[in-house]
Amino acid sequence: MENGGPAPIRCKAAAVCRAAGEPLVIEEIVVDPPKAHEVRVRIICTSLCHSDVTFWRMKDFPGIFPRIFGHEAFGVVESVGEHVDEFAAGDPVVPTFLGQCSDCVDCKSARSNMCSKYRFAVRPGMLRDGTSRFSDASGNPLHHFLGVSSFSEYTVVDVNHVVKINPAIPPSLACLLSCGASTGVGAAWKLAKVEPGSSVAIFGLGAVGLAVAEGARICGASKIIGVDLNPEKHELGRPFCKKFGVTHFINPKELGEKPVSQEILEITDGGADYCFECIGLAALMNDAFLSSREGWGKTIILGVEMHGAPLSISSHQILHGKSVIGSLFGGVKPKEDIPILADKYLNKELELEKFITHEVELTDINKAFDLLHQGKSLRCTIWMDKDAK
Amino acid sequence: MENGGPAPIRCKAAAVCRAAGEPLVIEEIVVDPPKAHEVRVRIICTSLCHSDVTFWRMKDFPGIFPRIFGHEAFGVVESVGEHVDEFAAGDPVVPTFLGQCSDCVDCKSARSNMCSKYRFAVRPGMLRDGTSRFSDASGNPLHHFLGVSSFSEYTVVDVNHVVKINPAIPPSLACLLSCGASTGVGAAWKLAKVEPGSSVAIFGLGAVGLAVAEGARICGASKIIGVDLNPEKHELGRPFCKKFGVTHFINPKELGEKPVSQEILEITDGGADYCFECIGLAALMNDAFLSSREGWGKTIILGVEMHGAPLSISSHQILHGKSVIGSLFGGVKPKEDIPILADKYLNKELELEKFITHEVELTDINKAFDLLHQGKSLRCTIWMDKDAK
Repeated sequence: MENGGPAPIRCKAAAVCRAAGEPLVIEEIVVDPPKAHEVRVRIICTSLCHSDVTFWRMKDFPGIFPRIFGHEAFGVVESVGEHVDEFAAGDPVVPTFLGQCSDCVDCKSARSNMCSKYRFAVRPGMLRDGTSRFSDASGNPLHHFLGVSSFSEYTVVDVNHVVKINPAIPPSLACLLSCGASTGVGAAWKLAKVEPGSSVAIFGLGAVGLAVAEGARICGASKIIGVDLNPEKHELGRPFCKKFGVTHFINPKELGEKPVSQEILEITDGGADYCFECIGLAALMNDAFLSSREGWGKTIILGVEMHGAPLSISSHQILHGKSVIGSLFGGVKPKEDIPILADKYLNKELELEKFITHEVELTDINKAFDLLHQGKSLRCTIWMDKDAK
Repeated sequence: MENGGPAPIRCKAAAVCRAAGEPLVIEEIVVDPPKAHEVRVRIICTSLCHSDVTFWRMKDFPGIFPRIFGHEAFGVVESVGEHVDEFAAGDPVVPTFLGQCSDCVDCKSARSNMCSKYRFAVRPGMLRDGTSRFSDASGNPLHHFLGVSSFSEYTVVDVNHVVKINPAIPPSLACLLSCGASTGVGAAWKLAKVEPGSSVAIFGLGAVGLAVAEGARICGASKIIGVDLNPEKHELGRPFCKKFGVTHFINPKELGEKPVSQEILEITDGGADYCFECIGLAALMNDAFLSSREGWGKTIILGVEMHGAPLSISSHQILHGKSVIGSLFGGVKPKEDIPILADKYLNKELELEKFITHEVELTDINKAFDLLHQGKSLRCTIWMDKDAK
């Protein structure tokens, strides 16, 4: 305890990952007070995103253990460190994996969401000093994840990684704006700038892909083509996708020898205006590219290639007026755009409820992993305290 | 001769390519009258572009022989076919390899320069009926090239492939707007939309690359970095490039082990805003991508990959806000933008004279090939009649 500031908190529950790919373990941990430019947040609810799973499986650096995962969450500021003017105890907030210092040339530009003062990286510690604010019952440090680590009753985040949110939004929906929904909706709205009447093809109908559909629907796209390769997604299937504005559903397995791109070229009479890759597979990135129209077709890469394979496309076909753009967080600038998305929800433009298919308590967090693996859930809300709903 | 219209013309000279990679042969040929929607043009001067050389070397289809090459030219309309209202005999024109019907959704859109009614292809005949308007002394047909075939005193082009040009521009400079200069300047001005104060890196300092520099200079770029790998370009070298606004010249051979992209990252403090690939090599496309800044760095592909290799870049790095766009003719819409570029020349914004390093008569056309091969020329004007200068 420094200068009479906040004291360490003994958390009665955090889900700790002790080793790559192993079930999370509910433990009591200690969460240190926030240092300068940091905020300690009481997490109300969190949810599981594919990136958590990717790093949970990763044996080599930046895979590192023991670690507290989770980066999509809603919480309330518990205390603040020195030099924090932007937040006060009691503020409802969403933490974000992408930071915004609001001061560098990128943060000040409308063209970029990649802070160049504190560059994005998958760090095991805090942004500024690299150390951890978590320790286990034996006093050993636990690593952070993506600057958030929300699978814990309390966490400490840098001020750059947290955004104030309108308290009128229910916690489980605010949580979605912390990552998945913002990424997908942002990619359609801010990055691609989908126009009314345009055609959109989406490869991968997880939460991000369906959030792209939701964004495209809001932007007035007339054709929204959803492609999903995972047979286990069938449970969600066509009627479910329709809720998100998907007008055409393609299961490539039903096409036989016909390439997906050929099917999309036929549906759109020459190719989609905007094609989004939301899985992270180089082959699908190329399918998306092939499905985009000549002249102005844009391919938007949102998926993190899961094997590190390069993006490989025809160097001749791109000359026909095609382009490819990639983005983290769908081009969303956290501190400016999340409040806009929140307003879109409150104005009933953006329908967040339909993303939530399940809910569990923190003690059952491994169930959320199972549901995501099995393609059964879009988003499973993980409540820290079931009475907080 | 149909309906009392124009008669075939016996051309006293055309440079015919009889077989892949062989020197062109000056022959007498017959040029048929223009059919409906066609224009017969007396070529005043033409020049040699790398694409001519690429197809001149090509043994397999779309390489086809005997053929009349040339697609960068200036001429005067000699006669017009039926249904041609846009042109009349005597009009000064530049033919263009890229067509514009002005009627399809792409031609009507500001976003595209890829006519979707008559799609771009390397055809051996005329656009609409696929036949040839050329025959040799024995009456055998000679193939067309890129809808232009300007290595001939007379040629026939589709109305979509020809643009009226202000007669105030000297023929040898108007000729440059037919392909190379428009491509490079257009890529900086229209496609990338280079802003004042921005940084630009150009891979390959041939006529197209230096036209990108010229376009970037006009747009007010503050750093224009030229990269050229060809040691034979040294004759042009630094002082020459400076004329085009190149502020930094990099010969990768002088960098030792240091990658070009690292050098550009240092010069630009994090990467260039716009990187142009003007050669047509997949490895350079990747270098250009690596040299572009995170946040908003744009890589513009203008080169036709000479071995058909794919564009292969990091699928992870593109997520950091980078994009890649490709284009034929630098995004220029021939009928709208060439007159604008002509005005830029007449207003003394665009300096076309400096692109011309040599001139020959048609009978010496093989010299123009040698000069280009040896990296000694940028553009060599090929005059049909030396008295027409």
